[in-house]
Amino acid sequence: MTNSTRNELSFEPDLLLINAALVVVSGKWRLYIILILGEQTLRYSQLSERLPGVSEKVLASELKALVGLGVMKREAFAEIPPRVEYTLTERGRLALPILRQIQQLGQIFN
Amino acid sequence: MTNSTRNELSFEPDLLLINAALVVVSGKWRLYIILILGEQTLRYSQLSERLPGVSEKVLASELKALVGLGVMKREAFAEIPPRVEYTLTERGRLALPILRQIQQLGQIFN
Repeated sequence: MTNSTRNELSFEPDLLLINAALVVVSGKWRLYIILILGEQTLRYSQLSERLPGVSEKVLASELKALVGLGVMKREAFAEIPPRVEYTLTERGRLALPILRQIQQLGQIFN
Repeated sequence: MTNSTRNELSFEPDLLLINAALVVVSGKWRLYIILILGEQTLRYSQLSERLPGVSEKVLASELKALVGLGVMKREAFAEIPPRVEYTLTERGRLALPILRQIQQLGQIFN
């Protein structure tokens, strides 16, 4: 049976996959950060401006985690002043349509 | 501008919607419980069997939260022995395709 046929007939919940997905989106800021970067590449300072309620420490830690998970990449340019930019990876961009749908889920339960 | 046109042109991340969505799926078991109920209505004992690693206390609390969020409903039947069944609500069923996609997200980042 192909995967797609199987999907239609019976969808098998898989705890490992669920947890791999939730690590990417859980927490107050991760999904928001990813969706912002889905619109455009941003410098650290621009990201920080879009997240006024988030401390530097929390933002730095969330960005590091998302880079580690392979959702986005960090590029540092040797300029004066130094420039650091964040961009979605290919996998991050692949996930973007689903990630945007999670926000739509909020409309159902809001 | 219609909603769908707006969506295509620029997707606006919305922290309130994101958080309303994350409450439904966050935690180790919520999404798994919802996906199991997406297949069929289950008695409490059947749910409990599908979640062998979860304590009665945690399961009861997660079920109560999901009922409170409007994702599923609890029906108690006055039989001997008493029967309690959990079923997705209409909203829960509406959300199901997106919730299943979250699991697919796990395949991208696994």
